[in-house]
Amino acid sequence: MEENLRIPGPTPIPPPVAAALARPMINHRGPAFAELLRRVTDHLRFFFQTDQPVLGFPASGTGAMEAAVVNSFSPGDEVLAVTIGVFGNRLAKTAELFGLRVTRMEVPWGQAADPQAVAQRLAELPNARGVLVTHNETSTGVTNDLRAIAQAARAKRSDILLIVDAVSSLGCVDLRMDEWDLDVVFTGSQKGWMVPPGLAMIAASERGWAATARATLPRYYWDFRRARASLEKGQTPYTPPVSIYFGLDVALQMMRDEGREAIFARHQAVADLTRARARALGLRLFAELAHASNTVTALRVPEGGDGKALTKALREREGVVIAGGQERLEGQILRIGHLGYVHEADITACMDALERQLVAVGYSLPVGSSGLARGE
Amino acid sequence: MEENLRIPGPTPIPPPVAAALARPMINHRGPAFAELLRRVTDHLRFFFQTDQPVLGFPASGTGAMEAAVVNSFSPGDEVLAVTIGVFGNRLAKTAELFGLRVTRMEVPWGQAADPQAVAQRLAELPNARGVLVTHNETSTGVTNDLRAIAQAARAKRSDILLIVDAVSSLGCVDLRMDEWDLDVVFTGSQKGWMVPPGLAMIAASERGWAATARATLPRYYWDFRRARASLEKGQTPYTPPVSIYFGLDVALQMMRDEGREAIFARHQAVADLTRARARALGLRLFAELAHASNTVTALRVPEGGDGKALTKALREREGVVIAGGQERLEGQILRIGHLGYVHEADITACMDALERQLVAVGYSLPVGSSGLARGE
Repeated sequence: MEENLRIPGPTPIPPPVAAALARPMINHRGPAFAELLRRVTDHLRFFFQTDQPVLGFPASGTGAMEAAVVNSFSPGDEVLAVTIGVFGNRLAKTAELFGLRVTRMEVPWGQAADPQAVAQRLAELPNARGVLVTHNETSTGVTNDLRAIAQAARAKRSDILLIVDAVSSLGCVDLRMDEWDLDVVFTGSQKGWMVPPGLAMIAASERGWAATARATLPRYYWDFRRARASLEKGQTPYTPPVSIYFGLDVALQMMRDEGREAIFARHQAVADLTRARARALGLRLFAELAHASNTVTALRVPEGGDGKALTKALREREGVVIAGGQERLEGQILRIGHLGYVHEADITACMDALERQLVAVGYSLPVGSSGLARGE
Repeated sequence: MEENLRIPGPTPIPPPVAAALARPMINHRGPAFAELLRRVTDHLRFFFQTDQPVLGFPASGTGAMEAAVVNSFSPGDEVLAVTIGVFGNRLAKTAELFGLRVTRMEVPWGQAADPQAVAQRLAELPNARGVLVTHNETSTGVTNDLRAIAQAARAKRSDILLIVDAVSSLGCVDLRMDEWDLDVVFTGSQKGWMVPPGLAMIAASERGWAATARATLPRYYWDFRRARASLEKGQTPYTPPVSIYFGLDVALQMMRDEGREAIFARHQAVADLTRARARALGLRLFAELAHASNTVTALRVPEGGDGKALTKALREREGVVIAGGQERLEGQILRIGHLGYVHEADITACMDALERQLVAVGYSLPVGSSGLARGE
C-alpha cells in the first residue's frame, strides 16, 4: 500500500522529482553541475526573498542550526533564545553546547512568542549579540509572527543578529529575508521543497557576513566563507548531495511555475481545511488559533484517547501516516503535516481516515459533524 | 550522451540502486525505516569488519572528518597527522582548526607513509593522543599499508587513538577495523558504496568510545553518543537522508551477493587493467607502484601535454569523465576512478578513449602499444 505521508517532513516527493533523483550521477566539479547549482541558487534566492547567496550543506536541519551558530558567534557571546517548542529548545541547546551564554525565553507550548515581550527581554540584555527564533515550530504547530518579532527586536537593538530557524516554513509561508532584515535564515530540503532530506540551505545578510568574519567558534565543514567562495566558482567546498540537487532543480522549477503567492495560498487553503475538518470532528487545536501553522496542525488527543494507538491504526489500517507528539507531548497530540507537495484531496483522505479510526476506537463524533456523512 | 563517469567519486549508480532512490518517501520514525536501518547497519558492520555499531550522518566525507575529530579529542590534545596528499592535509587542517596541537608528518606526494617512520615520529611525541591517517589518498592514487602502520603505531603506544580516513577505500579494499585495532574509521556513500553522496558512515572501537566520553570539543550534530542511542531504537537523532538509505539498502545487498573478497578481487582486477593499459600507452603512474591504489589511478600528464585540455576533450568528445589533479597537482596528473560499480569493460572504454584523445593532440604512442590496435 502506498502511504499518504502526512508527517511534517520528510514530505511526499512529486513524481517528476522522484524521477530526477534516479538520474545518472555526474561530476560535481564539472560544467553540468555548475549550471544546475547556479539555477538552483537563483531559485532559492527568489524563495528566501534575498539578494544574498544561498549556501547548501549536506545536512539535516539540525546541521543548519549548528552552522548558523558556529558562523555567527564566539564562545561567551550572549544570546536570547526564544523557544516555543522542541526545535526552539534544540537551537538553544546547540548554542549552549558551543559555549554561548544563552538566556532562554520559554513561551508555553502551543503559544507564539509575543513580539513586545521579546523586545522587552532583549532590553534587559544589553550585551546580547543575537536572538535565536523559530519561524514555524514543528513540534507544536505554531507559527511565530516573525516579521513583528524582527521589527520589535530591531527597534530595540539595531545591530542585533536575528538567527531564524525557517526549516518548516520557508517556501510554504511568507518569509522576506531582506525586507524583514533577518540575518541568518535556514531551511531543510525535506520540508516545503518536496525533495528528500539531506540538504540544508542557509543564507546570511550583510550583517550576518560581518558576524561570520568576526566569529571565532571553530568550524571547517560549516564554514560559510568556504561555501561562498566555492559557490562563486559553481562548486561546493566538498562533495554535494548530487541526487538531492537533481530533485531540487525540478522541484524549484515546479514551484516557480506555480508561483510564490499561489504556493502560500495553497498552504493556507489546506491548513484551513485541516482545521475545519478537525473542528467538525470536535477535535481541539493544540495551538492558539491566531498562530496556528499553515504547514503542520497539532490536535489534542481526545480525552481518554490513546494517541499512539490512533497513529498506529491510521498507519496500519488506512495507510495514512501522521506524527505524534514529541518529548512531553508524546501521546498527547497528533500532528498532521501539510507542507510541500500537498493538496486538498490529500487532507480530505487523511481526515476521513482519522474520522473512521476515531469512530473505530469508540470516540463519539459531534452530531452532524461527519465529513463522510456530508459526502466529502 | 550518458557519461562514463570515471572520477574517484561520486561513482556511477547501478540501475537497481537508482530505482530505489525514487521510492516514495517514508516516515523516518516509523517501523519501515527502523527495519531498513537495522539491515543497513548489519551490512555495514560486515564491510567495516567490526562488531561495533556503524553510525550514519547526513554529510560528505569532510563532515566525517570533523565528526571523528570532535568526538575523539579535546582542545590542546596533541596528535600526529600522517599526510600523503590533499585529504590527509584536510584532516590535519580540521584538527588544527579545532584547537588540537597537530604535528604533521608530510610524506612526498605519490608515496605511501613508511610504518616504521610513523612509529618513530610517534616515539618523539610522548604526549600524543592520536594518529590521523588516510587509508587511500584520493588525490595521489596511493594506498597506505594501513595494517602495518596501525601495528607499528600500536607497538609503540598501545593506547594511541588511530583515526582512519577510509572514505575511498572501505568496501573496495580490505580494511579490518577490529582485527587491525583501528579506533575511528569513516567512509562516504558516494565512493565504493555505489550510492549518491550525502551519507557519512563512521564506527568507533571501545577505545574510541572511551575517548568520546572524555572528549570536550563542542558537538551536537556530530555527537556519536546521541547517534548510538538513537540507533539502538532504530532511529537517527535527526532526519536521515532517507533516499540515500533506500539506495544503500539495495547496494549493500548487491555487495553481499557478490561477496566481500570477490569485490576486493574485482577492484584489484580493474586497477591492474588500468595500470597495464596506461603502461602500454607509455604513461607513468604518479604513485609508486608498490602502493598504487586499487580505487583510483593517478597518471602523469605526458611531457608538454595539457591535462585540462585532455580531460575536457575526453568529456566533450568521448563522454568519458575523469578527474585532474588537485591543488599543486592541477594540470599535472589525470585521475581515473575505478571504485564501486566498475567493471573491466568500463576501464577498457575509458582507456580506449584516452588513447584516441592522446593521439588527437599529437601524442606519440609507443610502438605496438595500442590497446585499440590489439583489438581490445
